[in-house]
Amino acid sequence: MKLYDLELSGNCYKVRLFAALAGIDLEIVPVDFLGGAHKRPPLTDLNPWGELPILVDGERVLRDSQAILVHLAGSYGGAAWWPAEAPLQAEIVQWLSTAANEIQNGPASARLVDRFGYTLDKADTLARAARILPLLDAHLADHDWLAIGRPTIADCAMYPYVALAPEGGIDLAPYRHIARWIERVRALPGYRAMPGT
Amino acid sequence: MKLYDLELSGNCYKVRLFAALAGIDLEIVPVDFLGGAHKRPPLTDLNPWGELPILVDGERVLRDSQAILVHLAGSYGGAAWWPAEAPLQAEIVQWLSTAANEIQNGPASARLVDRFGYTLDKADTLARAARILPLLDAHLADHDWLAIGRPTIADCAMYPYVALAPEGGIDLAPYRHIARWIERVRALPGYRAMPGT
Repeated sequence: MKLYDLELSGNCYKVRLFAALAGIDLEIVPVDFLGGAHKRPPLTDLNPWGELPILVDGERVLRDSQAILVHLAGSYGGAAWWPAEAPLQAEIVQWLSTAANEIQNGPASARLVDRFGYTLDKADTLARAARILPLLDAHLADHDWLAIGRPTIADCAMYPYVALAPEGGIDLAPYRHIARWIERVRALPGYRAMPGT
Repeated sequence: MKLYDLELSGNCYKVRLFAALAGIDLEIVPVDFLGGAHKRPPLTDLNPWGELPILVDGERVLRDSQAILVHLAGSYGGAAWWPAEAPLQAEIVQWLSTAANEIQNGPASARLVDRFGYTLDKADTLARAARILPLLDAHLADHDWLAIGRPTIADCAMYPYVALAPEGGIDLAPYRHIARWIERVRALPGYRAMPGT
């Protein structure tokens, strides 16, 4: 299996983190992101959206880090990470949506501005972060893990850009339950860090 | 099962549409949205995020329309809509993420400005729509349905705010493959419209 990867992308790190935790071998293919390789063929033949990560597993090609987590966990990671029961999957999907929307457009986008010079509305990214982080903190006040009482791909999808929030100028100090959850993720067997976390 | 609902919400309509297509009975509980009932107890006890829809199924409470679709389809709708195989689920989840992010922050948010007076950056919502709609149109040029070759919850998650795009001042005329997909959705047995679609 090939992961078309950018080391500094939190979306790519979601996949590398989960693969490390679940003991799944990935062939990492570094992409020349600064050179724009993801925006032209052959990579746009794999993902017309021009984004990373991309997973190629035989004939299957997947974009979107959340979808890649579902595939890896359901096909190779076992029911611990992505159970077969729909009500449990739904509880996890709540957080996959949060990772795709509120976290991507909040802390992840704030980091794109500060760290990589993207021309996004920084105030908007901070306002979105200021809404979602207290909700996340309140949830974690009485949950060790985001969904179904154990570590799942929900935690892998949410962790990277929450832990990287300080790179977008967001202080995590007010969020003590988030801080403890970050420590719990880091203590998982097989945990693999990325620069900035 | 109770669905806390707002008739004019496309996110609520995703759930009502799927329930109609799959023949699932829901008790619809209209929420006084203009009066802010979703922003205070008892609804914030069910969903601290202060958003609709909310599904209550016995002891289970779910926020996020994508997660609700997974629960309803996996628990009551059958494998046609949400198959058990992880690679197929992953193909669908790609579009659940797109619905949660690109569509929500593009055409759905443009409609919030024009139709409901939200103070969002209209130009940003239009720019996001102008990126995602051509990608969607290109995908639909050689796919009748968004994922796995048949109607699934991917179509239910994406359809409402794409079909409602004109209410945000977005002209769908350039997107002829989207127009044909909209017609295919409308022709599904059990299809139920909402005002504006």
